[in-house]
Amino acid sequence: MEFRLDRAREILERTPPTLRALLQDLPQDWTAPNEGEGTWSPHEVVAHLIHGERADWIPRARIILAGDESATFTPFEREVGFAEARRQPLNSLLQTFARLRSENLRTLARLELGDAQLEMAARHPRFGRVTMRQLLATWVVHDLNHLAQISRVMSKQYRNEVGPWEEFLGVLHMRITR
Amino acid sequence: MEFRLDRAREILERTPPTLRALLQDLPQDWTAPNEGEGTWSPHEVVAHLIHGERADWIPRARIILAGDESATFTPFEREVGFAEARRQPLNSLLQTFARLRSENLRTLARLELGDAQLEMAARHPRFGRVTMRQLLATWVVHDLNHLAQISRVMSKQYRNEVGPWEEFLGVLHMRITR
Repeated sequence: MEFRLDRAREILERTPPTLRALLQDLPQDWTAPNEGEGTWSPHEVVAHLIHGERADWIPRARIILAGDESATFTPFEREVGFAEARRQPLNSLLQTFARLRSENLRTLARLELGDAQLEMAARHPRFGRVTMRQLLATWVVHDLNHLAQISRVMSKQYRNEVGPWEEFLGVLHMRITR
Repeated sequence: MEFRLDRAREILERTPPTLRALLQDLPQDWTAPNEGEGTWSPHEVVAHLIHGERADWIPRARIILAGDESATFTPFEREVGFAEARRQPLNSLLQTFARLRSENLRTLARLELGDAQLEMAARHPRFGRVTMRQLLATWVVHDLNHLAQISRVMSKQYRNEVGPWEEFLGVLHMRITR
C-alpha cells in the first residue's frame, strides 16, 4: 500500500484507545515484567511512546518543513524519562500519551502537508537523507511495532503455563525487538 | 508468572474492546491484505477468533470437566467459516466476537474451576495429555498471539514506505506465524 496521510492518521488515532483497552487497570503482574535484561516492560513501552510524541515525530517533521535538506535531526534517546515514568501509574501514562497524540494529530493537520511537502527531506543522524513521507510512515509502523511488542511481552508471562501448545503459539518464539 | 484464573480473565475480557479500538471502522486497505499466500488478513484473524469461541476453548474445557482423561478433543479446523466471514463486514465480526467472548466468560465463571479442576486433563489429538490449566493459559496467549499478528500484518502494508527506518522496526522482520 502506498503512503497516504489519511490512511496513516487512521492508525495513529487508534493507538491510544487500543492501548487503553488493552492495558488500563491491568495489574502490574502483566504490565511490569519484561523479557529479560535490557528489554522493556509494557509500562516502559508506553513511556517510550510518550517520549516519541514529545521529541521525535512532530519535532522532526518541523525540521524537514524548515526546508534545509542538510539539517540533521537531534538523535532520539530511546529510554529518556524511563526512571520518572516507572514512578507513575500506567493509567496516568496512558492518559498522557492519549493527550499528546491528540495534540500532535491536530498539529499535523495544521501543517497541511501535500505531495510536495511529503517529498521534502532532512538528514537522520545515522541513515542520512530521509523524507517526510518516510518519517510519517515510520510513525505508523512504530505504533504497530510496539503494540506487537506489548502483546509478545505479556504472552511470555504464560510461556511455562501453556504446556505442549507452546509449539503452536508463534508469539512465544518471536525474537526480542524494541 | 504462574497461571491464575483471575489474571487470565483480565486479558480475555480485554481482547474484544482492544480489537474494536484497533479495527472498528478501519478501511479495507488496512484490514483485507495479508502477508502472502496461505496467510491471514486482520479480517480473517477475527473470523478465526470467532470460531475459537464456538468450537475450541469452552467445548474443550467441558470435555476435560467431564472427567474422562482418555477423552480426545475434536480437532480444531483453523479456517472454518472463513468464506462466510469474508462476506461479512469486519465491524459485524467484531461485534459477534465480543458477544461470544462475553458469553464464554460468563460460562467460565459458572464452571467454578478450583485448583482440582485446573489439574484435570483430557487428550489433545496431537499432543496427548493436556490439563485445564494449560488449555486456559493457551486461550490467553492465543489472544495475544493474534493481536501481535494483526499488528504485524498491518505494519507490513507500509514496509516499502518507511525507507531506511525498516532496519529499526522489528515488527517488519518477524517471521510469519498464524
